[in-house]
Amino acid sequence: MSNVQFISQYGHEEVAFFQNEAAGLKCIIGIHSTKLGPALGGCRLYPYASLDDALFDVLRLSRGMSFKNAAAGLPIGGGKGVIIADPKQKSRVLFEAYGEAVNSLQGRYLTAEDVNTTVQDMSWVMNKTKFVVGQDGVSGDPSPFTAIGTVDGVKATAKFLFGSDSLKGVKIGLQGLGHVGFDVCRQLYEAGAELIVATHSNRANMKVAVEEWGAKEVTDAELYKTECDILVPCALGATLNYDTIPELKCKAVAGAANNQLLDDECGKILKARGIAYAPDFIINGGGVINAGQEAFTTYDKEKVLKQVHNIYNTVYNILDESKTTGEPEGVIAQRFAEERIKNGL
Amino acid sequence: MSNVQFISQYGHEEVAFFQNEAAGLKCIIGIHSTKLGPALGGCRLYPYASLDDALFDVLRLSRGMSFKNAAAGLPIGGGKGVIIADPKQKSRVLFEAYGEAVNSLQGRYLTAEDVNTTVQDMSWVMNKTKFVVGQDGVSGDPSPFTAIGTVDGVKATAKFLFGSDSLKGVKIGLQGLGHVGFDVCRQLYEAGAELIVATHSNRANMKVAVEEWGAKEVTDAELYKTECDILVPCALGATLNYDTIPELKCKAVAGAANNQLLDDECGKILKARGIAYAPDFIINGGGVINAGQEAFTTYDKEKVLKQVHNIYNTVYNILDESKTTGEPEGVIAQRFAEERIKNGL
Repeated sequence: MSNVQFISQYGHEEVAFFQNEAAGLKCIIGIHSTKLGPALGGCRLYPYASLDDALFDVLRLSRGMSFKNAAAGLPIGGGKGVIIADPKQKSRVLFEAYGEAVNSLQGRYLTAEDVNTTVQDMSWVMNKTKFVVGQDGVSGDPSPFTAIGTVDGVKATAKFLFGSDSLKGVKIGLQGLGHVGFDVCRQLYEAGAELIVATHSNRANMKVAVEEWGAKEVTDAELYKTECDILVPCALGATLNYDTIPELKCKAVAGAANNQLLDDECGKILKARGIAYAPDFIINGGGVINAGQEAFTTYDKEKVLKQVHNIYNTVYNILDESKTTGEPEGVIAQRFAEERIKNGL
Repeated sequence: MSNVQFISQYGHEEVAFFQNEAAGLKCIIGIHSTKLGPALGGCRLYPYASLDDALFDVLRLSRGMSFKNAAAGLPIGGGKGVIIADPKQKSRVLFEAYGEAVNSLQGRYLTAEDVNTTVQDMSWVMNKTKFVVGQDGVSGDPSPFTAIGTVDGVKATAKFLFGSDSLKGVKIGLQGLGHVGFDVCRQLYEAGAELIVATHSNRANMKVAVEEWGAKEVTDAELYKTECDILVPCALGATLNYDTIPELKCKAVAGAANNQLLDDECGKILKARGIAYAPDFIINGGGVINAGQEAFTTYDKEKVLKQVHNIYNTVYNILDESKTTGEPEGVIAQRFAEERIKNGL
């Protein structure tokens, strides 16, 4: 069984493989949809075991970007780039060759930073193409906007659970103190939340969380079992799986991590357990709202913030509809996005 | 095991999938190499069982075009298009959508007719792109040039076998009386060859071959076992396989059909049996020499014919080198092409 079939199944408009032997480039660019506008999505660099594995990743991620961008209300489509390489192989030549590949798609795909790619890498890409967003001096680092939107989503979840969006005394289990998670943690502290936090590696950040923000440190394994109001995953994907879901003692999950549900079935199980879920690609849309604005208009931070804050309403409405219909929140969110792609914003 | 791996294995520069739901288009364009020039190869329409099957076909065929074009001495690379559809689904809308896909590659790929596509279909493609060759009124139908080159190759084979390229009295077993095969048959008759002919379906052509050119009609099964000097396959692919090779009673094989050898191993077995083989992609290069000229210069029939007649020398040299080195002819031909791609014409 080949992953090529997913091109049909997911309905991608275009999927392009590029190989440039001289530059050592092997990459795939997936353009899932340009119905709402040019396909925007980051460029991930990863030492995939095979081209087929890389294909599956780019197909899944580019489709996810269609939904995320549409749900965020952006007039842009969904795409993604993957470069098959070890981060040690990163070079100017490699990213310039990638830039040529991006440029050959004539703006149907807009690239950006992603896992294992940086602003420096993108500056090399820009030597060969203008179809790059999220650059220094324009929209800049998207993480603060992802964090702002996530906190809005947590507040909407509190409103859904308790009738008030005050986080004062709300017990939050937070996973991850990276770029986004640390920022989310600070804002939740400032909003008066009670914090239980797990992290893999950010010791310095954990010290701040514990000593300055009064967080209680736990392990990841403990965090899943912690009794709390809202679990806020801001690190790994697939944390909501067949092992963890039965252990959860939270009332809701609302965090910034990508692909939190291992699969669709896990969304159903979570729902059956009565745990509310703020769909990840909705709540973490702040970064793409910020970067995406570069793609279609002059960058305006106030406009961006206004649109990011709208995540509050979207999350609340999805939680509410799920309560009424009994459908998992992820299903509702995806349909919401699909309808926008079909019918326009 | 997925066919995606062959993108790496064959070293394609670019492979692009396009899906246009509104137009009912699913296609793949494979660009194997543009080192010598833009990648030229026809567009095949076929109801492939899966996208993965279509991928394998386009990868194999586009790579074959790189070798064919390089071996023919053309400053053009190798590519191919496949449309996944039933011939009954052919429409203006479908081919215009294909034309948009071709156009988006900005001339890195030049399309043309192939299996199940016609001059009419290509006129629809031309509504959306100029990157089409082999059109009416320019180089036109490539088949007569394929036939001329094939007859040159048969003559070179006779020269190799008998020291003279006269076909007078040479016993030829010919398979196929289609567009190319019928033309080859006529020229072999005019050159004085003794003809034994098999065909699947061209009854009217067979009548001419038998009644006017003195051919003896046999079945395909009989043809393989027929004692003759040169077998000239001008119909199906994979006729040289594990069943037929042990039965052959010819001294050489030299015909216009594509992909005559089932696999590389069959090339070795044929060689071990002492049967000389004019590699298919060399001997049938006349059509692409004709169409290809449109791709890089003003069409000039005299120049085309001169280059087509050079197939005689290429075939003779390969047969001769194979006799000296003991390597199968197909291996020598492929290396010849690969070296041209690597080092230039």
